Amino acid sequence: MILERIKSEGLAHNSYFIGSGVEAAVVDPRRDCQVYVDQAHQKGLRIKHIFETHRNEDYVIGSVELKTLTGADIYHGPGLPWRYGTTLTDGQEFRVGRLRLTALHTPGHTDESVSYVLADPASGPEATWIFSGDTLFVGDAGRTDLYGPEEAPRLASALYDSIHRRILPLGDGVILCPAHGAGSVCGGRIADRDESTIGLERLQNPALRMNKDEFVSYKLTEGLERPPYFSRMERLNLDGPPLLGRMPVPPPLTATEFKAEMEQGSVAVDTSLPPAFGGAHIKGAYSIWLGGLPGFAGWLLPYDVPILLVLEDDSHLEMALRYLIRLGYDKVGGYLLGGIGSWYNAGFPVEKLGLLSVHELKGKLDRDEGLTVLDVRGGEEWDEGHIEGAQHIYVGHLEERVSEVPPDRPVATLCNVGRRSSIAASILLRAGHQAVHNVLGSMTAWRAEGFPVTRKAGAVRSGNALTQASRSAD
Amino acid sequence: MILERIKSEGLAHNSYFIGSGVEAAVVDPRRDCQVYVDQAHQKGLRIKHIFETHRNEDYVIGSVELKTLTGADIYHGPGLPWRYGTTLTDGQEFRVGRLRLTALHTPGHTDESVSYVLADPASGPEATWIFSGDTLFVGDAGRTDLYGPEEAPRLASALYDSIHRRILPLGDGVILCPAHGAGSVCGGRIADRDESTIGLERLQNPALRMNKDEFVSYKLTEGLERPPYFSRMERLNLDGPPLLGRMPVPPPLTATEFKAEMEQGSVAVDTSLPPAFGGAHIKGAYSIWLGGLPGFAGWLLPYDVPILLVLEDDSHLEMALRYLIRLGYDKVGGYLLGGIGSWYNAGFPVEKLGLLSVHELKGKLDRDEGLTVLDVRGGEEWDEGHIEGAQHIYVGHLEERVSEVPPDRPVATLCNVGRRSSIAASILLRAGHQAVHNVLGSMTAWRAEGFPVTRKAGAVRSGNALTQASRSAD
Amino acid sequence: MILERIKSEGLAHNSYFIGSGVEAAVVDPRRDCQVYVDQAHQKGLRIKHIFETHRNEDYVIGSVELKTLTGADIYHGPGLPWRYGTTLTDGQEFRVGRLRLTALHTPGHTDESVSYVLADPASGPEATWIFSGDTLFVGDAGRTDLYGPEEAPRLASALYDSIHRRILPLGDGVILCPAHGAGSVCGGRIADRDESTIGLERLQNPALRMNKDEFVSYKLTEGLERPPYFSRMERLNLDGPPLLGRMPVPPPLTATEFKAEMEQGSVAVDTSLPPAFGGAHIKGAYSIWLGGLPGFAGWLLPYDVPILLVLEDDSHLEMALRYLIRLGYDKVGGYLLGGIGSWYNAGFPVEKLGLLSVHELKGKLDRDEGLTVLDVRGGEEWDEGHIEGAQHIYVGHLEERVSEVPPDRPVATLCNVGRRSSIAASILLRAGHQAVHNVLGSMTAWRAEGFPVTRKAGAVRSGNALTQASRSAD
Amino acid sequence: MILERIKSEGLAHNSYFIGSGVEAAVVDPRRDCQVYVDQAHQKGLRIKHIFETHRNEDYVIGSVELKTLTGADIYHGPGLPWRYGTTLTDGQEFRVGRLRLTALHTPGHTDESVSYVLADPASGPEATWIFSGDTLFVGDAGRTDLYGPEEAPRLASALYDSIHRRILPLGDGVILCPAHGAGSVCGGRIADRDESTIGLERLQNPALRMNKDEFVSYKLTEGLERPPYFSRMERLNLDGPPLLGRMPVPPPLTATEFKAEMEQGSVAVDTSLPPAFGGAHIKGAYSIWLGGLPGFAGWLLPYDVPILLVLEDDSHLEMALRYLIRLGYDKVGGYLLGGIGSWYNAGFPVEKLGLLSVHELKGKLDRDEGLTVLDVRGGEEWDEGHIEGAQHIYVGHLEERVSEVPPDRPVATLCNVGRRSSIAASILLRAGHQAVHNVLGSMTAWRAEGFPVTRKAGAVRSGNALTQASRSAD
Repeated sequence: MILERIKSEGLAHNSYFIGSGVEAAVVDPRRDCQVYVDQAHQKGLRIKHIFETHRNEDYVIGSVELKTLTGADIYHGPGLPWRYGTTLTDGQEFRVGRLRLTALHTPGHTDESVSYVLADPASGPEATWIFSGDTLFVGDAGRTDLYGPEEAPRLASALYDSIHRRILPLGDGVILCPAHGAGSVCGGRIADRDESTIGLERLQNPALRMNKDEFVSYKLTEGLERPPYFSRMERLNLDGPPLLGRMPVPPPLTATEFKAEMEQGSVAVDTSLPPAFGGAHIKGAYSIWLGGLPGFAGWLLPYDVPILLVLEDDSHLEMALRYLIRLGYDKVGGYLLGGIGSWYNAGFPVEKLGLLSVHELKGKLDRDEGLTVLDVRGGEEWDEGHIEGAQHIYVGHLEERVSEVPPDRPVATLCNVGRRSSIAASILLRAGHQAVHNVLGSMTAWRAEGFPVTRKAGAVRSGNALTQASRSAD
Repeated sequence: MILERIKSEGLAHNSYFIGSGVEAAVVDPRRDCQVYVDQAHQKGLRIKHIFETHRNEDYVIGSVELKTLTGADIYHGPGLPWRYGTTLTDGQEFRVGRLRLTALHTPGHTDESVSYVLADPASGPEATWIFSGDTLFVGDAGRTDLYGPEEAPRLASALYDSIHRRILPLGDGVILCPAHGAGSVCGGRIADRDESTIGLERLQNPALRMNKDEFVSYKLTEGLERPPYFSRMERLNLDGPPLLGRMPVPPPLTATEFKAEMEQGSVAVDTSLPPAFGGAHIKGAYSIWLGGLPGFAGWLLPYDVPILLVLEDDSHLEMALRYLIRLGYDKVGGYLLGGIGSWYNAGFPVEKLGLLSVHELKGKLDRDEGLTVLDVRGGEEWDEGHIEGAQHIYVGHLEERVSEVPPDRPVATLCNVGRRSSIAASILLRAGHQAVHNVLGSMTAWRAEGFPVTRKAGAVRSGNALTQASRSAD
Repeated sequence: MILERIKSEGLAHNSYFIGSGVEAAVVDPRRDCQVYVDQAHQKGLRIKHIFETHRNEDYVIGSVELKTLTGADIYHGPGLPWRYGTTLTDGQEFRVGRLRLTALHTPGHTDESVSYVLADPASGPEATWIFSGDTLFVGDAGRTDLYGPEEAPRLASALYDSIHRRILPLGDGVILCPAHGAGSVCGGRIADRDESTIGLERLQNPALRMNKDEFVSYKLTEGLERPPYFSRMERLNLDGPPLLGRMPVPPPLTATEFKAEMEQGSVAVDTSLPPAFGGAHIKGAYSIWLGGLPGFAGWLLPYDVPILLVLEDDSHLEMALRYLIRLGYDKVGGYLLGGIGSWYNAGFPVEKLGLLSVHELKGKLDRDEGLTVLDVRGGEEWDEGHIEGAQHIYVGHLEERVSEVPPDRPVATLCNVGRRSSIAASILLRAGHQAVHNVLGSMTAWRAEGFPVTRKAGAVRSGNALTQASRSAD
Repeated sequence: MILERIKSEGLAHNSYFIGSGVEAAVVDPRRDCQVYVDQAHQKGLRIKHIFETHRNEDYVIGSVELKTLTGADIYHGPGLPWRYGTTLTDGQEFRVGRLRLTALHTPGHTDESVSYVLADPASGPEATWIFSGDTLFVGDAGRTDLYGPEEAPRLASALYDSIHRRILPLGDGVILCPAHGAGSVCGGRIADRDESTIGLERLQNPALRMNKDEFVSYKLTEGLERPPYFSRMERLNLDGPPLLGRMPVPPPLTATEFKAEMEQGSVAVDTSLPPAFGGAHIKGAYSIWLGGLPGFAGWLLPYDVPILLVLEDDSHLEMALRYLIRLGYDKVGGYLLGGIGSWYNAGFPVEKLGLLSVHELKGKLDRDEGLTVLDVRGGEEWDEGHIEGAQHIYVGHLEERVSEVPPDRPVATLCNVGRRSSIAASILLRAGHQAVHNVLGSMTAWRAEGFPVTRKAGAVRSGNALTQASRSAD
């Protein structure tokens, strides 16, 4: 038998491919789903079932796409007016070759959330794996804030019960297969380790070592962001997203063509890393580094006009495209062939962005040069320590709150390592700010140099090294 | 962090690649070890440590090869006069990036057997994975007969203690990473599932549900074969095998060149499947299907003369070569370019082999045509059911016991599906037998048709579907 | 700039990918046309034009498929009621980046045949390459018999003029890019060398060293076969074939499922090589070795029922599928998972075929055992030498002429190396013949052993080593 | 038969793989020569011969490396004290399968230069291909200045004779296979088209349309640069370079480790593109963009200390390594894992470089801000047009002539598109200049904007679009 974890980079999303005999099933397929067809083809399997753990909110699910390619049946949990697939019931059983898969209704992250328990009768009747969706992660539990603050206590309580009454009793030896790994927007403290077991989670997962009251109150104060594209994903995943058929192939554009497209209203995104974006970019382009597309494109990019790409290397096109497709950005209008060099070789003007080292920032602050320090990290990161006097607006909210940043003063944007702050800097430039700087290395470098940090009263810096590790990716 | 299982097909051998920070370690590397170097390269890691769980007997270990490529240090268990690497002690600790790895002396399979326990301090101090070598498999425990029958009781007892006193107490949630999967010669009942945990093994592994006496007596009657190449592997793995440097590239040979090489004493192996080998082959060639090389080459092929290959498809060369290299066959003299077709197109004579369906075999037996039915399966398989009146010699012993087969009567060779029996048929042909037939489908087809089977008194056919599944591969 | 020859194996078909600046064009795309999209993607090009040299008869053209993927325009030659694309005129010019491409009407192979001349103005105004379609090959000229014997003289004369008046005057230095290489059914004597020039052809191509009368009379006696699927290809290529969208993925079938499909009327094809097919196959299956599908599937397989595949190795599926798709076989019903072994392991009966070495054949003939020797090679091969007393029916015609083979006598089928004769043997078995043998190595081995050969009076064996070389592929 | 052109990117070097029957030969193998072994392996060929066209000066030849892997024999031309291989004589013949290869002594580029003529006797006795080394390129002839100005007239005259008396008479239809394509340092005007013929060159190659006197005088004024590493390459290629055995795998380094290595004297090279290098780099690092390594590493990097790499993307490591290995840089000490981000995240200071658009440059010049404009292009490029008042030092000579640049004034470096000028800027920074700017887009953007250009009296801008095209790559 076969069990493969298929990771969607950037989203930190896990789907699973299960095979036995000549049959296969997929749990939570991604939208660029040729990977499952190829797996089945190579292993001599037919995909019979597609199981969804819940209506995902952070990406477009690939179930309908995969069903079109394979004829497999789609199943999901009870209580939503799904416009495709079959709603299953708690305890419903399926066969995948010799394996037995059982649906386990585990509400909490959402009401329709289902986990799937897989057993291998050839070894014994016991549960062997659990596909826990967004109910239980390695090191964390699913978020419970998606229905808004009124519903959050009810969901948190349901999640506690789902975990403690339904999942933990399956036994310590059961292997945990969650829908997300570290870096997901679906859980803030997920460990950067793919593999775990119920036994390990019982011992190590902080969320499982609380009593119910502690758990609910922890959940209510998590403070995770809810990006605006979530509601679009939810709608698409309820109704069934448009079919791709195959991966689109956006055309290469010359500088002149690219310019013309921008003038027609297309939105440009530059996926270079901060030093390159700072060095030269096209006026009006958003800065979102390649690996940041899954997390930040949805905050900023419109769905109704074409997206144009400026890539640090033309070979990044496929990955950029996958990232966008997974978020439902099906209109990619093209990419600038040869990158920013083609632009300035054509004699077109480039815009620059000030880049500051932390030493330069420190100097400016010490000299009191009237610089606004704009920290665009999340609330929890801010609470754990920031530069005295800095202004705090989360990067996702900056575009709507940009008027809060004093327009007539120079500003230095700051995050954890300088990538989100490059996004922020591009938002400020688009809004007409003149003297914008991005701080390379940001708080990571600031701390490494031992420069002073202020903490919110009562806040402690997370001792969770994993959380820090995963954050350093942005 | 990264944990990758790297499977060596055919040997059903698992090695493990562990990475954290910029450091990596490999447990039980195979000899064609570029795969680990590539992993490290892609992930930006430096291989620092190589850990051996024991002196392997079924393949040539790649530690020295990998050390040469990377400068990593080699560690192995206590009590053997190793001529390379460092002998470690029970409880010795290592760091791989942020991970902590602890050696656990677990004798039983062999005296120097060591397991390695890996913990991730970022999640907690508890053991997370165990690399259990040949001590504990998914569904079985290591064999204890390698030192001969006198030592077997002592080893079985030690193995019981290693498992029950040292491994099981680590906790049910610990993920099991054994050195072999289903199909290995190192355990007869290993499940065809790669993943397990201590908790699942406690519940499902038959070998773990016995008390000590039952376990020892089960181990003493396992009846596994001990191929002659084991002692060669043991010696090479103690002294350090010759360095390959890079994978050798055996030359393509024309039919004329191939013939000349055979006349110089090289030994030919035809890796075709039974129907093709039966249809036409070169006189004197052994029949060992491609996937059977890891398990059967070592029983038959000499180490002191070059091996020549006849491949069903020239693209099989690389896999055939890997299989042979892993068994220490470094002298591969070439392969017949274009396969058997090149041979007969050149006008060279081919030899054929009778191929019988089970229906034809049944007819011949019913008509009492004086056919010797030679069953070459293992003892346990034979005991579980065979054709009345058949002769039994295990394929591995046939060459030395070939005189026991009546030379003047037609013979039909038989195994589980017809692959090992094709080996047997080629041995009989080499020994001068004239009327040799191979039974396609063998006992699997015989049973599928409902033809009668005789059981040894008291033997019961294994109810273990997994065992059957894994056997059907040969 | 870029010029890539993309070969479709089996068909010996060449298509060409031309790129300059950001533009690309494809000449004669194949139906599985993702390869061109990938090329464009990797090189940063947009496919703007698709040029067809003629309405192909030996495969389904991929123009419409590629247009759907890329939006490129399709062009073809004058005089046919095309139902897609644009008909161009002699001398029409196109730009591909900085390159200039000119259509050259070169009738003869067919009336609408067009060649395309490519020049690189950056180097000079002279023609640099010619895409000569089926007008001029390396070592041969296109066939002129496709409109039937009445039209053949007219076409041959036109072809002579196209070559001598339009192509050769372009200059000796022009690089020749024909639509086919050695092994194509579109020319019997094409050299096994991909590259040539007009200058080399003038010196070396036998067809170009004749005067017009010699050329016409050579063309009228070529004796090439015209398979029945040609007319289907022609119709599809005139109207535009059905769109694939993506490569279909036929399901793996268990033996039981495969059997059920056959009982529903699906036709099985076994793509094993002759020794394996002879050793064991499913009753009723055609024998067509994998590489023989492009040349022989169209003679035998129906278009209106599903095709089922028995593969020598499951990894051959993709290639088998490409071969069938290129001939318009869009209904592939599945493949037998695990190949013939799965069949006989299930206890299902297998059929065998006698396999004879040439020494055995010689013995039987010397002993006058009443064997029919059935030679299924082409007419020209037969004329150049055959076994005294053999019967001659071309493999492509055997199914309709099978009643001419004496049904009550044993028969040995024979071709050049034993592959086409395996096809023939399977036709005989399907027709109810009982004692059918295939001669391994066939005439190649027969000649290698120096056995006697009879020549048709006046026939000389071709001195063209290339022709022999290309034939030995079957 | 097979003929494959294998291109070594960056060097614009072509090697050729020839196969026929079971034999193969390689012309001018590169040092990272696994590619030829893989080709032979895939095609079922044995590499028998290695042919060198001349002692190359621009890269380390791979003959000895390939011989070690395959046992093939090495041949090269007469007149040098080779310390490996066999010196052949004019007219010496070889067989590669059925093909016939003949050595043709064609001195001029160097005295020992040999071309190889390949014929396919199956088609006819005529020459079909010529491997012309550095004697004749597509659109240009080899340089004749390598022995210094005294010898240049003699060499130019010999080259003229080799081309006109020995190569052109082979016939217009012969296919040209030169050792270099566009962008090579071995010829300034090579076309960006891989394929040509003698006939096309006769018509289109400017160097072939001159009489002998014109040709010699053209050659004497070519003004190509002779990098200092040429003499090292020549010595290595005469004596036989050190064996690699396998591609080295430089270790990933943390920022701290990288810093320590630099402090030990290792030299850092940053392969980022100009905007990123300008945005942030490590003080002291050379800026050589990835694709510029083959052309410029040899001018700047020492051979006696380890080279350290800062990569724009870690996946560029392999290509960077190949480029360096081909120039004999075998000591690559490691690369900065995670690139420049790792450096500044660690809190280490970064250095920046001013980046100017051409509009900014124009503004500064118009305002007469006292800026030194340093144009680092080649002499011919400079002559064809430059900015009034600019200083000219070729990038390759800048390090030794750096004192000529006024140290106390701001300087803007300029080349064709801004890459070589980034190298120059890094040299100035290393030399202690404070106010250094690189002009993005450089002369290409300057011209695109229509800003004024001064020409050397009598100089005309090359009408050769290809030359311009190839230059725009740097």
